[in-house]
Amino acid sequence: MTVTGISPAIILVEPQMGENIGAAARAMLNFGLTDLRLVKPRDGWPNDRAVAMAAGAVDVVQNAQVFETVEEAVSDLQHVYATTARPRDMIKPVATPNAAAAELRQFTQLNETCGILFGKESSGLSGDDVTCADTIITVPLNPDYTSINLGQAVLLVAYEWYQHADQTPAKIVRNEERVATKQELGALYNRIETELDARGYFEPIMNRRSVILRNMRNMFHRFDMMESDIKGMQGIVKGLSLNKKDTGK
Amino acid sequence: MTVTGISPAIILVEPQMGENIGAAARAMLNFGLTDLRLVKPRDGWPNDRAVAMAAGAVDVVQNAQVFETVEEAVSDLQHVYATTARPRDMIKPVATPNAAAAELRQFTQLNETCGILFGKESSGLSGDDVTCADTIITVPLNPDYTSINLGQAVLLVAYEWYQHADQTPAKIVRNEERVATKQELGALYNRIETELDARGYFEPIMNRRSVILRNMRNMFHRFDMMESDIKGMQGIVKGLSLNKKDTGK
Repeated sequence: MTVTGISPAIILVEPQMGENIGAAARAMLNFGLTDLRLVKPRDGWPNDRAVAMAAGAVDVVQNAQVFETVEEAVSDLQHVYATTARPRDMIKPVATPNAAAAELRQFTQLNETCGILFGKESSGLSGDDVTCADTIITVPLNPDYTSINLGQAVLLVAYEWYQHADQTPAKIVRNEERVATKQELGALYNRIETELDARGYFEPIMNRRSVILRNMRNMFHRFDMMESDIKGMQGIVKGLSLNKKDTGK
Repeated sequence: MTVTGISPAIILVEPQMGENIGAAARAMLNFGLTDLRLVKPRDGWPNDRAVAMAAGAVDVVQNAQVFETVEEAVSDLQHVYATTARPRDMIKPVATPNAAAAELRQFTQLNETCGILFGKESSGLSGDDVTCADTIITVPLNPDYTSINLGQAVLLVAYEWYQHADQTPAKIVRNEERVATKQELGALYNRIETELDARGYFEPIMNRRSVILRNMRNMFHRFDMMESDIKGMQGIVKGLSLNKKDTGK
């Protein structure tokens, strides 16, 4: 596999203001990023204000892909990061933009697809959005004044990406293995959930169903699963889902 | 001398839009900077738009100091940086925001006063403004799209400053010497210029006067002069300015 110039996608989840989409596009292009994805932009798409604000980066806006869900937006990606202002009660690694950029460069040198989620202006990413990510990015900020806007958050992450252009080659060894895509992971989750529901597993604990499922998704994200791991897990799920054999006892 | 929390000043030279002054103040406070200085803001001062844009950082705006000239704005500083988008034909060190932040932390740990100049939105810093600085800061950007706005430039420099908070202590040794202030340097330049003019030095080359003087200022900036160097140079200038003694020959 040759090392190409693939770059991380910037994924804005339910962005509210077209101006901020335009500002994000400019920040991206300043630092060589062009793959903009939008999940349910509030004011629909296309958006004249985004185009007006984008100035010289209007191509980035006009080539943006629009999705209905975060799951769809990340389905082809192998590594997903979620930017959050505050810690979440999830067991996920937390990186600074600097550390995340170093890692992103290693992944993209291996031709692995990456993306970074940014939440809506008013409230950031939801817990479910963060669950779609492997790693959290938090910008170290003056604890007395942590308000930064969407365009600035994109700027800082894109800036760090660009500054790591010349770092030494990746040391990660994959042994011909391929990291699972989020679509493959999502299919595994859905299979497990469907099978659990079909068995009435949650019926006595329905109020805890969503928390349990989210914890499960977070757990699998931590596993850094390869394609072969997914196949193995799918086999296990399939096996467990079979009806018990009548052993004659 | 104890190590205190002194932080670099952010100096906006002839900023045109109040909104950008407010955005700069927010970016400063996000990363723990509060010393905002303005040189001849276009729309006067105070400025309602700057206050409105500053949101939670309104104290930074309201405590801003306003100056008539760059020289006055930097007169109490010992180390001055100039942010420029493009290289200038001056012999000054050029640093990335990252490298500049590391250096700034070393200086402030020694309790030395620092500031960073940012030019006006339309055209950046003038050559004369840059001459007031010891070092140039240039943000590495996608060469195909280098347009960033004033607030973003302040954000990136302030961000790097904050990220270097935990670096190892300074290795610079000053041997009880004090770095000269820009006021002391300015007084030296003015003295030299006055003496040269008084002697008609430039009369045959009046069209080159300003270039020669700028080159001289840039040269002295490169010298990293200490207080004692200034005194030594002042002595030399004084000595050279005396009328030739009548030796009787």
